[in-house]
Amino acid sequence: MDWSPLKHLVETHRNWILLSHAKPDGDAIGSLLGLAAAIRSTGAMATPILEGGLPSRYRFMDPNGWLVLRDNVSQDLWTNADALAVVDTGTWNQLGHWAEKVRAFPRFKMVIDHHFTQDAIASVNFITTDPEANCRLIYEAGRSLGFVPDALAAQALYIGLATDTGWFRHGNTKPESFGLAFELVNLGANPTLIYREIYERSSLGKLRLSGRLLSRVSPHLNGQVVGSEILFGDWADIGAIPEDAEDLIDLVRVLEGTRVGFVLVERNPGETRGSLRGRDGFDVAALAQTFGGGGHKAAAGFSFHGSAQEAKGLLLERLRERLAPNT
Amino acid sequence: MDWSPLKHLVETHRNWILLSHAKPDGDAIGSLLGLAAAIRSTGAMATPILEGGLPSRYRFMDPNGWLVLRDNVSQDLWTNADALAVVDTGTWNQLGHWAEKVRAFPRFKMVIDHHFTQDAIASVNFITTDPEANCRLIYEAGRSLGFVPDALAAQALYIGLATDTGWFRHGNTKPESFGLAFELVNLGANPTLIYREIYERSSLGKLRLSGRLLSRVSPHLNGQVVGSEILFGDWADIGAIPEDAEDLIDLVRVLEGTRVGFVLVERNPGETRGSLRGRDGFDVAALAQTFGGGGHKAAAGFSFHGSAQEAKGLLLERLRERLAPNT
Repeated sequence: MDWSPLKHLVETHRNWILLSHAKPDGDAIGSLLGLAAAIRSTGAMATPILEGGLPSRYRFMDPNGWLVLRDNVSQDLWTNADALAVVDTGTWNQLGHWAEKVRAFPRFKMVIDHHFTQDAIASVNFITTDPEANCRLIYEAGRSLGFVPDALAAQALYIGLATDTGWFRHGNTKPESFGLAFELVNLGANPTLIYREIYERSSLGKLRLSGRLLSRVSPHLNGQVVGSEILFGDWADIGAIPEDAEDLIDLVRVLEGTRVGFVLVERNPGETRGSLRGRDGFDVAALAQTFGGGGHKAAAGFSFHGSAQEAKGLLLERLRERLAPNT
Repeated sequence: MDWSPLKHLVETHRNWILLSHAKPDGDAIGSLLGLAAAIRSTGAMATPILEGGLPSRYRFMDPNGWLVLRDNVSQDLWTNADALAVVDTGTWNQLGHWAEKVRAFPRFKMVIDHHFTQDAIASVNFITTDPEANCRLIYEAGRSLGFVPDALAAQALYIGLATDTGWFRHGNTKPESFGLAFELVNLGANPTLIYREIYERSSLGKLRLSGRLLSRVSPHLNGQVVGSEILFGDWADIGAIPEDAEDLIDLVRVLEGTRVGFVLVERNPGETRGSLRGRDGFDVAALAQTFGGGGHKAAAGFSFHGSAQEAKGLLLERLRERLAPNT
């Protein structure tokens, strides 16, 4: 990536708005905070704005309150800004609430992103799908500005790197992922503290919901598929809330020998959310599409009008076709 | 660590036996395989011997069958060896079945270890508690012999590094942990494959036992303590085996706001095994000692003659004393 234009852009624009995708993850928030720190280090102003709220697990990332929540954004902020950067996304639909504002923004716009799908949002684009995390691009952008991350910025960038690689275990992890982690931990990111903040603060509802789910785990189709479900009655029974159901699929998909894992969650009676995970090349995105959903080859999801039981019947039927002739 | 004596030692001893501790973990097996590869690269022979069997999750580490299980060790092996190395332990009791053999071994002995507690086993010792994993010492030892790990040796060393740091999240993780990971992944270790082999091959019994445990999770003492239990009836009910109960404490201890986590497992009627985890400086080793057990400050365990219910009563009583005056 040629970052040489960036220095001039930051020198000539002194009041930035930074935006990322809705439902921000660690890489989005890390990119926002990291780029804000880099731009501010030059003496310019940069205000990172969220599309909605800040998920509780990431609140520790912003002790100085740099992030502005959607409801706290004033019209002045938009009027006074002379530049806008979109990070960790490059599509209008991901910008959610802010899409129209960005479209109408009459001054300088740029995108820094590592995703494949791109709309023509900005006049200057730093886009490449090589990096395992967008925070790598932000790190490079910062360096091109002469920015050396302090401990808080290093933490933000580390979190993007670590969460987008599933803590250095997903297929996008490469030698350089550890190389960048080495630098960021040297600069003050604390992996132990970060892991605990993000992954080790479960609610009682989440633990018990996990218990309910795991108690119902079943193999299907000669052990090629594993699945489980949360029924509508479980929520009140356990005292769990929808947020407690995040990432439940990770508990289920690890059954030895399986190629496909699924979790079906009844949010309401007759309203089921399906999460799918595939291994060894099995394409769950294509399967999710038959339910009107989508995602990546290895991780996808869908919504279904009907009970978990009905969704499971259909899902296993379609899996049987796709997994044949091995079944 | 001054490795300069090692080259001469390996040049003058051409048939090595390598040993590690009983109940070998990733760092023990990685150290055995890594050192064997390093010594063999010089043209000498090195035979890594296990104290018992090879845990199934680590079998993929040894596709060429270098590791000799206890039952397959011949007397000739001991008679013909002119040198012996003990790795990842330095105490007689950890050598288990082999302690007497090592004691009686009349030729050259050395220890490469990163643990604090040491007996006087060998005449030459490469011992320092600095490294996060013993495999770092083995990596350095190999380098001093001019050894560049191939993909399989890099994998072995990476596994020691990654498992002893809890996949780069425990308190012993340091910047250099990522630095070494960078080198080993560059040499061919595949983090994605390794993670899957070691951590993502759960049995159905383990998943359902986890479900039973999580369904019973309860906070105690104003939310400072979290605990759960496996009852004797669960084993037959679920179809689980004792191995399925390994590491269950990690599922429970993550309840937000807690300082102590416990899991009580009824192995047999009236025979309970307790696992304890402490945070924020709470010393669970001292607590385990009151039950005749032991361990580290943050992770300890004990055996108890009685039911899980009885153990829980006593445990909470002793926790109440220790956590006061906050309760």
